[in-house]
Amino acid sequence: ILFVILCVLLLSCTCALSCFITSVQLFESESSTYTYLLADSETKDAVLIDPVLETIDRDLKLIQELGLNLKVAVNTHCHADHITSTGLMKKRLVGLKSAISKFSGASADILLSEGDQITFGKHYLTVRETPGHTDGCVALVLKDQSMVFTGDALLIRGCGRTDFQQGCAEKLYNSVHQKIFTLPEQCLVYPAHDYLGQMVSTVGEERKFNPRLTKNLDEFVNIMNNLNLPKPKKIGISVPANLVCGVHQV
Amino acid sequence: ILFVILCVLLLSCTCALSCFITSVQLFESESSTYTYLLADSETKDAVLIDPVLETIDRDLKLIQELGLNLKVAVNTHCHADHITSTGLMKKRLVGLKSAISKFSGASADILLSEGDQITFGKHYLTVRETPGHTDGCVALVLKDQSMVFTGDALLIRGCGRTDFQQGCAEKLYNSVHQKIFTLPEQCLVYPAHDYLGQMVSTVGEERKFNPRLTKNLDEFVNIMNNLNLPKPKKIGISVPANLVCGVHQV
Ligand SMILES: [Fe+2]
Ligand SMILES: [Fe+2]
Repeated sequence: ILFVILCVLLLSCTCALSCFITSVQLFESESSTYTYLLADSETKDAVLIDPVLETIDRDLKLIQELGLNLKVAVNTHCHADHITSTGLMKKRLVGLKSAISKFSGASADILLSEGDQITFGKHYLTVRETPGHTDGCVALVLKDQSMVFTGDALLIRGCGRTDFQQGCAEKLYNSVHQKIFTLPEQCLVYPAHDYLGQMVSTVGEERKFNPRLTKNLDEFVNIMNNLNLPKPKKIGISVPANLVCGVHQV
Repeated sequence: ILFVILCVLLLSCTCALSCFITSVQLFESESSTYTYLLADSETKDAVLIDPVLETIDRDLKLIQELGLNLKVAVNTHCHADHITSTGLMKKRLVGLKSAISKFSGASADILLSEGDQITFGKHYLTVRETPGHTDGCVALVLKDQSMVFTGDALLIRGCGRTDFQQGCAEKLYNSVHQKIFTLPEQCLVYPAHDYLGQMVSTVGEERKFNPRLTKNLDEFVNIMNNLNLPKPKKIGISVPANLVCGVHQV
């Protein structure tokens, strides 16, 4: 019996070392957007999160160099500050499927809702609905809860604005507290944007140090309703384009 | 005897999970510089690589929030495009030591040479000398060779220029091939700069896809000697400052 336990242990150790995920964070500087490429290092199946039109050539080149089979390009929500490259990418990669929340109002091959899984090889991302910045925002949680891709719901020491596109501060507060802050402390937080050169945080850090989301609900709502931010410059062209995968004629 | 093996296995699995390193990549957008913060997650001892004067407040705040004891701030070389924050940081963090290659010509508390180790908690970085971009360039290799911080010697699909500051294309070629390309294929490559939103690569990727360093020596020298780049805007103030840890009066 000890021998069996030994074998099981050895196997699980080997797996912990070999079941690698390739994860690459990429930045688009005009809109300060992070794009994430995740792949099963063995099967090469891959998922792309929040790709930007401006950097499609860089991203496709990397996918090709790494020999990946890109299965799904997913947007965490219908972005207002940049145009997604998912539509154009579908034309250049046969078989690629686009995905977005069913509450986004946008068209895509896969309409996501709570608990859905986006599979790549032996791994998957689980969808958690996080409305508040928009109605169709989702966070994507890696199988082992070691990483969460938070879109604009939770940013590093910040959060997405709630003053347009169905924004609602109360909803956002509840989404972050119920769907993201309940993940393990060490879970890495990868946001859709950062404007200060910060790339990664953890659930524990944000629970302790996020200047907005550590406040109580009333204070949070008050902060969010008094930001007085200018409208994103590209909202007029980005949102209509992103409602159809980044291309006006699908 | 099986029971002993079992215990050893269990212990090593536990260690693999608990001997965590906290590693944070940060970006300074004016000079497109990456700063890296590495810490032993248990002891909280930390090392900072290539910190920039402009982002000292962001970096110190993060160090404080994470409860880290910053032991060493190291520069991979005497930068020409930005001023290091090591000197000012030493004034604000008692006990912090600065480090740089002994061939850099710069003053610092610790003058590094080949094989030196920079220790933080149970972890350490090993110094590999990589002259070519400057005489005093070093790459810093994590204990288990899972990460290398390459400074300006090897960039993602590129490399540092060799047309000023003792630059020598032949030296750079040999440094990269002998000191970096000999690391394991999966070793993550973290450069001092990137101008296209790329954050990380691997030794395997660069050995296959680096457009300059996959060439032979003669072709490489020819490429490097015909780049015709303008001088860095800040070289006149950066280099004199960086020769004294970023402060003119040490
Ligand atoms: Fe957004
Ligand atoms: Fe440099």
